[in-house]
Parts: sequence; C-alpha cells; structure tokens
Amino acid sequence: MQRLSRFVPSSSRRVTDLKDALWSGSLTFQHALSTFAADENTSGRKFASYTVFKGKAALSMQPILPSFSKLESGGSRVNKNGSVMLTFFPAVGQRKYDYSKKQLFALSPTEVGSLISLGPAESCEFFHDPSMKSSHEGQVKKSLSVTPLGNDSGYFLNITVLNNLQKTTERLSLPISKAEFTVMRTALSFALPHILGWDQALTNHQPSPSPASKPRVERPHPDSEWER
Amino acid sequence: MQRLSRFVPSSSRRVTDLKDALWSGSLTFQHALSTFAADENTSGRKFASYTVFKGKAALSMQPILPSFSKLESGGSRVNKNGSVMLTFFPAVGQRKYDYSKKQLFALSPTEVGSLISLGPAESCEFFHDPSMKSSHEGQVKKSLSVTPLGNDSGYFLNITVLNNLQKTTERLSLPISKAEFTVMRTALSFALPHILGWDQALTNHQPSPSPASKPRVERPHPDSEWER
Amino acid sequence: MQRLSRFVPSSSRRVTDLKDALWSGSLTFQHALSTFAADENTSGRKFASYTVFKGKAALSMQPILPSFSKLESGGSRVNKNGSVMLTFFPAVGQRKYDYSKKQLFALSPTEVGSLISLGPAESCEFFHDPSMKSSHEGQVKKSLSVTPLGNDSGYFLNITVLNNLQKTTERLSLPISKAEFTVMRTALSFALPHILGWDQALTNHQPSPSPASKPRVERPHPDSEWER
Amino acid sequence: MQRLSRFVPSSSRRVTDLKDALWSGSLTFQHALSTFAADENTSGRKFASYTVFKGKAALSMQPILPSFSKLESGGSRVNKNGSVMLTFFPAVGQRKYDYSKKQLFALSPTEVGSLISLGPAESCEFFHDPSMKSSHEGQVKKSLSVTPLGNDSGYFLNITVLNNLQKTTERLSLPISKAEFTVMRTALSFALPHILGWDQALTNHQPSPSPASKPRVERPHPDSEWER
Repeated sequence: MQRLSRFVPSSSRRVTDLKDALWSGSLTFQHALSTFAADENTSGRKFASYTVFKGKAALSMQPILPSFSKLESGGSRVNKNGSVMLTFFPAVGQRKYDYSKKQLFALSPTEVGSLISLGPAESCEFFHDPSMKSSHEGQVKKSLSVTPLGNDSGYFLNITVLNNLQKTTERLSLPISKAEFTVMRTALSFALPHILGWDQALTNHQPSPSPASKPRVERPHPDSEWER
Repeated sequence: MQRLSRFVPSSSRRVTDLKDALWSGSLTFQHALSTFAADENTSGRKFASYTVFKGKAALSMQPILPSFSKLESGGSRVNKNGSVMLTFFPAVGQRKYDYSKKQLFALSPTEVGSLISLGPAESCEFFHDPSMKSSHEGQVKKSLSVTPLGNDSGYFLNITVLNNLQKTTERLSLPISKAEFTVMRTALSFALPHILGWDQALTNHQPSPSPASKPRVERPHPDSEWER
Repeated sequence: MQRLSRFVPSSSRRVTDLKDALWSGSLTFQHALSTFAADENTSGRKFASYTVFKGKAALSMQPILPSFSKLESGGSRVNKNGSVMLTFFPAVGQRKYDYSKKQLFALSPTEVGSLISLGPAESCEFFHDPSMKSSHEGQVKKSLSVTPLGNDSGYFLNITVLNNLQKTTERLSLPISKAEFTVMRTALSFALPHILGWDQALTNHQPSPSPASKPRVERPHPDSEWER
Repeated sequence: MQRLSRFVPSSSRRVTDLKDALWSGSLTFQHALSTFAADENTSGRKFASYTVFKGKAALSMQPILPSFSKLESGGSRVNKNGSVMLTFFPAVGQRKYDYSKKQLFALSPTEVGSLISLGPAESCEFFHDPSMKSSHEGQVKKSLSVTPLGNDSGYFLNITVLNNLQKTTERLSLPISKAEFTVMRTALSFALPHILGWDQALTNHQPSPSPASKPRVERPHPDSEWER
C-alpha cells in the first residue's frame, strides 16, 4: 500500500498565517477561538487542539480538564470528569470555514475508549440528548457516527443535530485519513488518564519521609482491601 | 460491527448530581467516598477513579501510589509498590448502590500486566488470601475472575469472597463493555509505571551541570555493568 | 525468528567519545550540534535526539516544541504546532559523517501519525515544497519515502531533494531495523501529544477550589456542547 | 485460555517484609540495594525497579537517566543516553537470593526497542563486550537471550557471562510469564523516551510570550528545514 500526501507546504504548519491569508468573513476561526477562550476567566490556562481541514467541513479536537472539589480532609476529588470536545464547522468556500455554524460534541471517557479501540472495519455511533431527564427530553438529539472508509484507509465522521422544536436537521461530515485518525487515537489515549484526573492523583507526590521517623500511612493502600 | 450508546445525557457526566438525585439511603456513594478519604491525613492529596454503573453492581477503579523510604545516601527507594484498587458495590434498586456492602480487590503490578495483555477471547483469575503465612491462612479467600462476553464485546467481572469462619460467600459481578475495558486498559497502562515508582525515578532530574566543571557521576550508569 | 546485535561495546553508548575517536574533519557532529543549538537564544533549553548510524548515512530525530501566543484573556493558545525534525547526513568514510551535508525534513503531526501507524508491509511517502504558494513554487522539492525491508525486519528511509534551479538532486538513504523503528515509533508516539501542546493544555492545572466557595467555572466544559 | 495466579498474599506486596522474613546471609537484597545507592552522591534521587522472583533466579529491572552536558548557549544536550539495567541474581535456597553473585546487563535504547516489539513467537539475543575497541577485546563476553516459552505464555531469559581469562562461564536464567513481560514491556515503553531525554526536551517549556511583544524565535523550528 502506498500513501501519499502531496507537496504539503511548510507554511501549512503556520496555522494562523494560512488562515489569515485564506479565510474571509467577519468571524474567522482565529477570532472565534480567541472569543471562545476569552469567555472564560482563564489567565494562565493553555489551549491546544488538533484540527483537520477538509473540503466540506473541518474538525477540531480539544481536551478539557476534569474539575475537582475539596474534601473536608484537605485533599480533593474529581467531581466531574473532563472530556474531549469535538467541534465541527462547515466550509463556505475553498478553504473558508464558518466557525459560527459550529456543532459541538463532547466525548465522555467511555466514548473516548470506544474510539481508540475501534477496529479498521468497525463502526460506532454515540447519541446525546442535552435535555434528557428534563421536560424537554427528546427535543434536540445529537448523534455522532464513525464509519470505516474501507481498505483500512480511515473513517468517515458525521454529526447530525435534530431539533424537533425548530424542525431542523443539521449535518456536518468529513473523511479522516488513517494517519489523521492515528493522531486522534494517540492524542485521545494520552488525554484519557488526564480527563479522569489520574495523572493528578498519581503525580501529586508527598515529600519523602525522613529517615528518622517511621512514615505515617498517608495514602489509601492495598491493605485496606483487608480492613472490612 | 455497530456499537451503540443510546442517548447518554450530558448530565450523566456530572457524577455527583446524578447520584444526589438518584441515590437514596443514609450512606451514599458520595458520602462514602468523602469518609474514605477523610480517614487519611491527606491534605493536598488528589483522588480520581473510573466508575462503571451497571444493573446489579458498580465497579470503581482507583490508582494508589507506591511508598518510598529514605536511604542513608539521602535519596529514597520504593519500599512498597502501589496498586490499583477495584471496589465493587451492589445495586439495591434502580440506579441505587449500597457502598457499605463494598468488596475490595487491590491489583498488584503483575495482575495489572495480566489485565492489560488480556486477549479478546482470554480469561484470567486472581486469588488473594489476606491471612496467608499467618495462622488464619485460608479463612478468607478472595477471587477475581475476568471472562470474555463473546464476540469481542467485553468481559464479565466477578468477585467472590469466601469466609470459612463465618460460612459466608459473597459475590458481585457486572459486565464491562469493550469501550469501558479500553478505558480501564488505557488507565491501567498509564498507572503501571507510576505504581512502580518509575515516573518518580525518571523525572526527578538533577540540575544541569555547569559548563565550567566536569560533571561528577551522580547516577548509577550503564558502566556499572562492567564493574564486577 | 532470531535477531542478533553482535558485541555492541558499552562505550558505543558514550556517543561523544565514540565520535571524538572516530570522526575526522574540521566540522564534527558534536561541533555541529553545539553550533546548531548556539544559533538560538536557548538558555535553559534541553536538547535530545535519537540517532542511528549506518554505512552510507546517519539519521537523527529530534522533537521540536509548539509555540504559544497570548490570548487577551491572559491564557495562551498554540499558534504553531511543533514537529519532529529528521536530519540525514552522509557517511564520508568508515564511521565518519559529514554533518555539513545534512538534509532536513520536519514531520508534521499528521506525518508522525502516518509513520506510527505504518504496518510491517506498508509504505508511505511525504512531499514538501518550501516555496509552495510563492512564486518559487516547485523550484525545490523534498520527498521522504519509507518502504519495508521485507520479512517484518524494518524499513528503508530515503530522502530526495530536487533543486530545479541548481539542477541538482541529492539523495540520502539508510535501512532502519525493526528494533530501531520501534524506538522511533515509541518516541514519536510520546512526542505527538507534546508537539500538539496537549500536555501543556492538560497539565496546566488550576489550584484546587477552596471548600468554602462554590468553584467558578474556570474552564471550557462539556456543557458548552449545549449552549447554542 | 485460563491463567491462574494462586493465592498471592497481600503481604507479598510488602517487598521489604517478605525479604526480611525469608532471606538469610550477611548480604541481603535489601542491604545490597542500600549499598548500591549509597555508592552514589544521590541526595534527592529516587530509585524504583520491577523485580520478579523465581525458583532458580530473580530479575530486577531499573531505569537509568541520561546525562546532559552544558552548551555554550546556556542550554544543555544529552551527551550519554540512559539505559535500563537488568540485574540477575541466583537463588541459594527457597526464596533466598544471593545478591553478591549478581550479573548486570544494561539495555541500550535500541535493545529496549527490540524487547518491546518482540512478537509472541520471536526470540532475540544481545551481545555485550565490555572491552571492545581495547586490547582486552573478547576477554569477557556477555549475552542475553530471550526465547518464547511457547503458547504465548511468556519468555525464558538467559544471561551468559563468558570470561576467557578466568576460564569461567556463568549462567543465570528464569522464566517470565506473559503478565510479567507485559509489565516489563509497559515499563520499558514508558522509560524509552525518558532514557533518550525526550521528556526533558519536550517539557522544559519556556514561559508564555507576553501579549505586547512579538515572540522571539526561541526554539529550533520546522522552518530550519528550509534554511540551507
């Protein structure tokens, strides 16, 4: 098998410049991202994504941290898992994308697990209902489907947002090459322990005990298996 | 193959809220976790888990750090490996779980290795005896079995605790989907070097040597292979 | 299958000493690397690579960080992805290499994804045109091809630089064993989330909220999926 | 396939206690490790390993950091790769091991790559000659062979040290289960980027640029591909 990626310019890696040159409209992706981040009180926060631009749509993938709540003991515990936000936005011309028409889909940890274990010939589909368990249940339904392109060459991603109230259905879809999906899979695998907060639980090391004193037990430990 | 996860609400990711709304009884999972952590003097410690709720039981998985002891040289060395604690607790109604009836099983590094290398059609079983090498050996026996659901769709986990003294046998079991097991496998693979303390051994970097002075050998190095 | 690596001396791991002893010419690899780094204002920066020396050429692989730009909110965002720089340089004698004749090829994140998902019998080829979108488009064309050696024993890497203006074509190639490619694949997989900036987005943790105050929302979170 | 690990006691995870109780002789593993570390000026350094105890021998695996040297620019560069040290020591009774008869084998990055890509039915063998390129070349030869146990159940590790001067040949070998080899593979994969220094090159982040000033180029970047 031979896979080609023809004459990608070095400047294509200058994401901003490319978009500055090629995009039009009053709301650019660049601007949108700045606005997006500015909505939050996030001094010191860093934002990173992986974005794939295709003929009819683009897809951006961004990890989102879990949140912790304080325990009375002074420690803290994850009270809400993080996620990986997928943002789809349509092309409105050659290499022009309208970020204001974006569709969002937040992957839960288990949905991330589903994607990273997807075999070359397998499909998966996720359904989200923002109003579930409320009186508006079923008014808006989002689904994300991932289906193989065939010949182990990648996947086709499709997001459908059905609004029963407004009687509208919006669809955005794009092909993801095997190489691009490998980047997504690798980034998702990296992100997964982080959106569960395991990196913080595992790297928040206590200072070493001093040689003079017997260390107090400062962590839940395997012996608690036997403490019942 | 088509895998579906139907209309998961966004609020399902708000673990606390879901449980606040749905759980009953004087001892909630929320409360139990707080109590669990409060037992330890753990100011500054962070806790994270991955929890799967099923019809008859739930399973929570939590990484536990290794402990270090000081060396006379001033450095420190792992004196007890960490583990990954599995906590099973039974359902006592629809989406209600009784955390007070929990069963614990602490996976050793090698047991973690067994789980993450488990093939789609393979089984494994671990046996723990809390009283081994004591006069009470054999009084309580715990076993954890992991068996395939078939068609590469996940595994069935079963914990059995046999108490020969009290003449009781307690069993808790639940199915784990392929996506959920992938989350577990990814989180376990991430945790493994950490519960062995390798991350601390590998990232506890010395300051760079100054250009003026020849660096002293401050680490055990490959040449010690030849020093006999 | 039996793979042998015959009597590698321990001193071969002393990269500098080996080269000091064996290399000649006024411009050594050692010197070149120092010069390379000295070109940058990089006090405090650390440089690491993975280098494979073969009969006709050597290949060095070095990760390059993304750059961030400040947002008005006070946070920052990746404005240029990092990459993994491949440096090929020709042998000019037995274990002598001329670093001044080096050829560079910077792998983008998606090209990294292509390499790490490459099957044992698969090939891939990347094309770069430094002058794309300028009036000099097509004057210089670089291509990197990766083709299997056969029998799952590794790959053959070939870089070709075609200069239409100078009417020159330069080629450098070398075989990479399965073990060496595994090092490259493992290092590339490790590097990928970092060159996208995901490690910085995921580990730049906020301080824990205090128990007294309800935490403000300080991060983009999954609920924003529903905010349209 | 069914894999069993029968009644492992929880106390087996208390490595020190087990050895305190079971080992004899004036030089215990515990003591040896302390001595080993005390040889170095290593205040603040942390040591971690993964050790497998079998009937005729034990094997301990320990990661070793690379060393850096200062550049004139103020940055630093790896001047010697790290490694993963394998330490074999013989059993001298039931669960008694003589650490003074240890044999060492330091795996280079490429040898680590060979091990982590080893297929279930594949073998590999490494040869080290501590005196290579000296007048003593060939006097001592070390070899490490890894051969499959069959049925995807693990590997047999054998170290042979042939001393032509002393006319001695020492051999130590032990079986490694699939689960144990998975721990080794996972720990080696984690260690590999660290022994190459890539983690330090990739996480030694510069402070974010200020919004007012255009960021200076402070890193080697992909554009240098085009600078020739």
